[in-house]
Amino acid sequence: MASHANGDIPIIMETAIIDDDVEDETKGGIENSNGVENEKSVKFTVTRVKNDLNRVKSETEVSRLATRNQLTPFDFQDSASEPSDTLVQNSITALLSSKFRDISKRIRQYGDTPRFRKRLVSKWESLDYDLIESELQAQEEETNKSKKKLTLMFISRWIIMFAVGIGTALLAAGVQISVEIIAHEKFHLIQKYIDRCSTESCTLFLPIGIWVVINVVITLLGAALVTYVQPVAAGSGIPFIKSYLNGVRIPGLLNFRAFISKTLGVILSILGGLACGKEGPMAHSGGIMAAGFAKGRMRYGKKKEIKFYDAFRSDHEIRDFVAAGAASGVSAAFGAPVGGTLFSVEEAASFWNTELVWRVFFSAMVACFSTNFLLSAFEGHPTHLSSPGLVRFSTFQNLSFDLIEIPVFLVMAVIGGLAGALFVVLNYKLTVFRRKYIRRKWLKVLEAGIVSLAGALLAFLLMYSVDECTEVKHYSDHAITAQMFCKDKSHNSMSSLFLTTPEGCLKALLHDPHDAYGVIPLTVFIVVFFLLGVWTYGLSVSSGVFIPSLAIGAAWGRLIGLGVVELFPHHAKDVGKYALIGAASMLGGILRTTISLTVIIVECTGDISFGLPIMLTLMISKWVGDFFTTGLYDMNVEVSGIPLLSWEPPPLCENIKASEVMSQPVLSLHTEEKVGSILEILESETYGGFPVVETNPKYRQYYSGKLKGLILKNQLLVLLKKKIFAPEGMLPPGVNIRCKDFDNPYPVGQRLTLKDIEVTEEEKEHVIDLKPYMNFSPYTVGPSFSMPRVFKLFRGLGLRHLIVVNNNYEPVGMVTRKDLAKYRAESKRGMLKVEHLKIENV
Amino acid sequence: MASHANGDIPIIMETAIIDDDVEDETKGGIENSNGVENEKSVKFTVTRVKNDLNRVKSETEVSRLATRNQLTPFDFQDSASEPSDTLVQNSITALLSSKFRDISKRIRQYGDTPRFRKRLVSKWESLDYDLIESELQAQEEETNKSKKKLTLMFISRWIIMFAVGIGTALLAAGVQISVEIIAHEKFHLIQKYIDRCSTESCTLFLPIGIWVVINVVITLLGAALVTYVQPVAAGSGIPFIKSYLNGVRIPGLLNFRAFISKTLGVILSILGGLACGKEGPMAHSGGIMAAGFAKGRMRYGKKKEIKFYDAFRSDHEIRDFVAAGAASGVSAAFGAPVGGTLFSVEEAASFWNTELVWRVFFSAMVACFSTNFLLSAFEGHPTHLSSPGLVRFSTFQNLSFDLIEIPVFLVMAVIGGLAGALFVVLNYKLTVFRRKYIRRKWLKVLEAGIVSLAGALLAFLLMYSVDECTEVKHYSDHAITAQMFCKDKSHNSMSSLFLTTPEGCLKALLHDPHDAYGVIPLTVFIVVFFLLGVWTYGLSVSSGVFIPSLAIGAAWGRLIGLGVVELFPHHAKDVGKYALIGAASMLGGILRTTISLTVIIVECTGDISFGLPIMLTLMISKWVGDFFTTGLYDMNVEVSGIPLLSWEPPPLCENIKASEVMSQPVLSLHTEEKVGSILEILESETYGGFPVVETNPKYRQYYSGKLKGLILKNQLLVLLKKKIFAPEGMLPPGVNIRCKDFDNPYPVGQRLTLKDIEVTEEEKEHVIDLKPYMNFSPYTVGPSFSMPRVFKLFRGLGLRHLIVVNNNYEPVGMVTRKDLAKYRAESKRGMLKVEHLKIENV
Repeated sequence: MASHANGDIPIIMETAIIDDDVEDETKGGIENSNGVENEKSVKFTVTRVKNDLNRVKSETEVSRLATRNQLTPFDFQDSASEPSDTLVQNSITALLSSKFRDISKRIRQYGDTPRFRKRLVSKWESLDYDLIESELQAQEEETNKSKKKLTLMFISRWIIMFAVGIGTALLAAGVQISVEIIAHEKFHLIQKYIDRCSTESCTLFLPIGIWVVINVVITLLGAALVTYVQPVAAGSGIPFIKSYLNGVRIPGLLNFRAFISKTLGVILSILGGLACGKEGPMAHSGGIMAAGFAKGRMRYGKKKEIKFYDAFRSDHEIRDFVAAGAASGVSAAFGAPVGGTLFSVEEAASFWNTELVWRVFFSAMVACFSTNFLLSAFEGHPTHLSSPGLVRFSTFQNLSFDLIEIPVFLVMAVIGGLAGALFVVLNYKLTVFRRKYIRRKWLKVLEAGIVSLAGALLAFLLMYSVDECTEVKHYSDHAITAQMFCKDKSHNSMSSLFLTTPEGCLKALLHDPHDAYGVIPLTVFIVVFFLLGVWTYGLSVSSGVFIPSLAIGAAWGRLIGLGVVELFPHHAKDVGKYALIGAASMLGGILRTTISLTVIIVECTGDISFGLPIMLTLMISKWVGDFFTTGLYDMNVEVSGIPLLSWEPPPLCENIKASEVMSQPVLSLHTEEKVGSILEILESETYGGFPVVETNPKYRQYYSGKLKGLILKNQLLVLLKKKIFAPEGMLPPGVNIRCKDFDNPYPVGQRLTLKDIEVTEEEKEHVIDLKPYMNFSPYTVGPSFSMPRVFKLFRGLGLRHLIVVNNNYEPVGMVTRKDLAKYRAESKRGMLKVEHLKIENV
Repeated sequence: MASHANGDIPIIMETAIIDDDVEDETKGGIENSNGVENEKSVKFTVTRVKNDLNRVKSETEVSRLATRNQLTPFDFQDSASEPSDTLVQNSITALLSSKFRDISKRIRQYGDTPRFRKRLVSKWESLDYDLIESELQAQEEETNKSKKKLTLMFISRWIIMFAVGIGTALLAAGVQISVEIIAHEKFHLIQKYIDRCSTESCTLFLPIGIWVVINVVITLLGAALVTYVQPVAAGSGIPFIKSYLNGVRIPGLLNFRAFISKTLGVILSILGGLACGKEGPMAHSGGIMAAGFAKGRMRYGKKKEIKFYDAFRSDHEIRDFVAAGAASGVSAAFGAPVGGTLFSVEEAASFWNTELVWRVFFSAMVACFSTNFLLSAFEGHPTHLSSPGLVRFSTFQNLSFDLIEIPVFLVMAVIGGLAGALFVVLNYKLTVFRRKYIRRKWLKVLEAGIVSLAGALLAFLLMYSVDECTEVKHYSDHAITAQMFCKDKSHNSMSSLFLTTPEGCLKALLHDPHDAYGVIPLTVFIVVFFLLGVWTYGLSVSSGVFIPSLAIGAAWGRLIGLGVVELFPHHAKDVGKYALIGAASMLGGILRTTISLTVIIVECTGDISFGLPIMLTLMISKWVGDFFTTGLYDMNVEVSGIPLLSWEPPPLCENIKASEVMSQPVLSLHTEEKVGSILEILESETYGGFPVVETNPKYRQYYSGKLKGLILKNQLLVLLKKKIFAPEGMLPPGVNIRCKDFDNPYPVGQRLTLKDIEVTEEEKEHVIDLKPYMNFSPYTVGPSFSMPRVFKLFRGLGLRHLIVVNNNYEPVGMVTRKDLAKYRAESKRGMLKVEHLKIENV
């Protein structure tokens, strides 16, 4: 059962055949592995020898490595002739600016928990956006390619895009309408009770009791739905959709349970009085719906599935539809078709494809238009088309601005950046705390209930204590106000901010006249809502962070606006403008999204001429925030250990070579391979793909030779399951295997695993001919390829595996998404440490 | 002087050493070469053996090829095991739909002229967006990389972007204001003369005479400026900017002369009364300005240049700034920052780079805002910010629409598509005619004069003959109207369309009340303006096609609007809406641009709720138009023979292998190469780069061996010029050569050519060590790589050279942009003919 690596570096197994040469390198790995929870109970602990930037590679060592790998010295010539690695290390450390410090601290702090490691190791896989080329595929394409089929595919794509748009609109409008109706009833009920008590001098315990019970029960329901049915539906969903579009497989993200949990969950969260919005979840729900439409099936039970057709089943096709769905979701939520399209494109289309963008845009436009139609119809005037999105900043009376106001906006942007960074830091601490202590499901549900309880009590306390009365006519019709202790015709101003959904609250802050809220209610509101927002995001409920961010920003923007009105009573009269800028800068400070966010806000505002101040604000607040932390979504992704690739290669890594990035040695298969060896390799490796090398009878048991192709783990499993093998020298049985059989069943159905394979001892000696199935032209690079160019290849082509070949076209290593993603985190730490490079080795 | 190809295929020279084996293939090439003008007087006619899809490759032939190339049979195994090529050929032919037929006819018709071939051969080169990695670069980066420098670069980029925005705005506003002032004066003058004659009953000869003389003289000036100063400034410039951003080097595109010709030229064209706009030229001028700012120098004389710094001198950096400049131009012209950004991104960022897009957007936003400010200031109210772009559809009173209007819009979209296709076909015929007969410079200038004359006379004739009077109050203030034979207080309705710039005309058609123009004046206007538009585009003047397209469309849209108002007088009252849809559909039919065009028009309209009908219209008109022809810009590019790569790999080429696309055999250099051999190869080859292979003393004169790197022609020339060589075995002279010395001087200064190199006979025996200078990790693929994946590599990474290596890592061929671009045109023809594949061989 001895398997051999490329060259003659033995694999370290439990039976511990440790070569003297590599002992020092492997020790660390083995020690490391002890502390790690081993989810899949992998039997063999394979430790790879990493090129370690911390060690100065001596000439001797290089040549030793070279000999062992049967490479010519040339392969290491480049790295050998470089300045010593210590120098590189020092310069990198020196160059990394202080802004990365807290990130590195965070990662160090968090990166040490075993859970983090395990996630990084086993949880995430990459999606396959690259074409797989095999003999089989070439043949099938020949027969498939009829004009009729191509036309059909073309038309189907457009029809599905249309359906996605309509579906998302129905969904968005449904959520919106149900929330509005129920919320209105709920707040009206409370209002009645409060007012009755304030006039009839009964105690306030009855309304408080009713309120708290309603909120907490609804929130517990929502939290239970998410926690027990589909935990991946927690949060806004945007970080996950981003990661998916970036190429990371996230189990369960696109199935029917996630859809239900997300959609019902967000309704319950909002009705439960949590400080959250429904815009992020719309993007996620839209994506799930699109994936379902594309596949024509949806997994709703354990194994049952509706199945219409197979045309759009590849990762690549589904990705396109999910992008369209997410865009439609954003478009429907904000009435921003262009912004929604850009949102998808920023994440999905690492390779901008005009045809795809055009379809995504179509879908987003249909969604926006249909939502508008449906909501207008709900309001009784379907042809007016006056409700372009779930949240819309409505129309501002006057959004013109003067050049002298720009400095004020800039100051506000800085404040937004600082406040945003604070939000992220606090939320990060909370996330770490949650990961450590709140791990049981019932605890998670309980926490959501507590947040809801706290929110309800706080709101009531504030309405009770901040005793500011304003005349009712000052409020627009979107708010429900309670009279509390105010006299006739005037109402408690605080109540109009709390007796409404977060969206209503945002609208009130943006559009109510400038004397609607005084300084004290605003200040109190800001503090309370900020803390509630921090506490809510990351709960195990379906919740978006857009609306609370905007509302907090609008509140302090309004406060600043009041100041400006006070100082320059002749120039400024409208505080709505400042509230808008505040909202934008807060959002920019928290999320740091880029051009798409700008376009979304500009579209929401509906006034292009106010675009410049909004853009400036978003830019500055992003820069200020970036100085302290990453954005909220990025923080989320980092903490989850998802190997997301950024847009650009990490800075200052021009001198890092592919040979240093790659995992090494790589286990290769022969073109004709024994079943036993395949099983062995599959058991010992977690890779998704393996290089296939020339069968060389001379070196039968050494996995070395000229590269011939690449075969995926999934393909191997299918071949083993279908028993496409025969004793050596005989033809395999005539099982009719087709490309489709290798198709990725994600997100539907069970994934084939090693456990499903049953092979007798006799069969282990049989041989599989891999040639027809393997990708016969995988992407390869030489060992001296620089890291930025490897990165560009991965990002631009959506690769999963990049084989590093030496001078003789023999595989010497493999670069995967994880190798690159880890590097990114590492380089931010300012240290390229070997422990972290070894995380994956377990 | 015998040079040798890879393997042992001899190169066919004038001394005609023809191998028996390859005779039949080479003959075609030689015959072909006779008909071709040989601009560079290349001495050696190298003919490559192409894999010809028309021939059925027999097993024997494959093995023969294999032996000759010293390949193992494996390399051709894949192609040999494919279904026979005739089958592939047939299926491809059968599959290509009829919509390509006219294109193929066109290419066949035009492709046979020697001029076309020559262009394809020699004129276009690729830009270099890929990183060049060499020992030298690695060393220099080490020293360059200080934190200070990186910060400086970061800040400089933003400052330059800001400057680009401001500069473009100044430019746009300047052009707009000068055109407006002068045009107003001109039309006012004419109006006075006409009116005086129509009341005082003098003959109309005086105003006609004045008008014709003014128009023709101005047009001649404009045409002469473009034709004699910088011919590349002709036309809208958008196709060229597109090609540049796509990666094609267009000589002179970004120099100072082009700037002057373009900017002054477009003012003169419009004042000369041509049917053209100034929006396309703005994109080009913006691009030039950005390039100039980025480089801190601009070539204004033969050799003089202003020079500030070297930081942003690589093709890659300049491309980014040009993208920003073009975006700013579009943004300033249309008041559409998002649309402008998307316009650049669609073409430039084959690899979407968030950082870049963010900068481009910033620049576009600054340009839009500044233009607005400047134009508003010109109108006397700088803080109103009421003029967001050069052309803006102003504000529509009422742009709401009913669902029942959608079918009308769709019919209009179909009409637009048809009319657009007709426009393109007519313009194509004219272009071909011009290329054949109007080739002298004075003829080109003369033609522009004739068009101007015809336009002036026709306009007068129409005002004279179409005798429709309307009351003056019906016209907005943008038109100058002549009384002609109308009574007091009513004026000739035709005159308000012709006594204005094309933009004024567009505004009149969009916004004037529905009874301002009758059916007859509109019909006549449509026909005349359509023909003038066709005739104008492609003249040797600086002219945009946006505005005339929109004006034609608005005119027939208005006509349809009149019909709808007539049929449903209760429902429809406003014809402006129909004019807008007509304008959009006409533009879509002519240009077929995609998402950016939609966003531009929506931004111009200023009303997001009308976005859906506009998008639907543009989409349908594009589809209808695409059924008949390609878009106007694409036609332009095709006819110029620019090797533009489309977004997607050509359809139905999944079974074409890299070995069939590549040019073969490839001439390689050794790591230590004799000066004489380098000169020989440079003389015989037009490539921009050569593979460098291991020096193998045994096969000294065979250019074969393991691939070690890639060296650019430009680098070789610099090395030769600086005489970095020494007799064999000795070290080269200690000339201090730096990365910068290899920097591409484009678009400034003379390019180093072979003629500049002077080498003695003795020096020819000296040896250059290429190792420090070459790119030591060029991108490579195997021969069985499929065409779509090769295409993706090129498009995604901006490659110029892709080396095809065999199993032994020896170069067997090279794929360049031209190889791929040719394939595209070819596949559209429905036939993959060998003649065309051989065009480049001459």
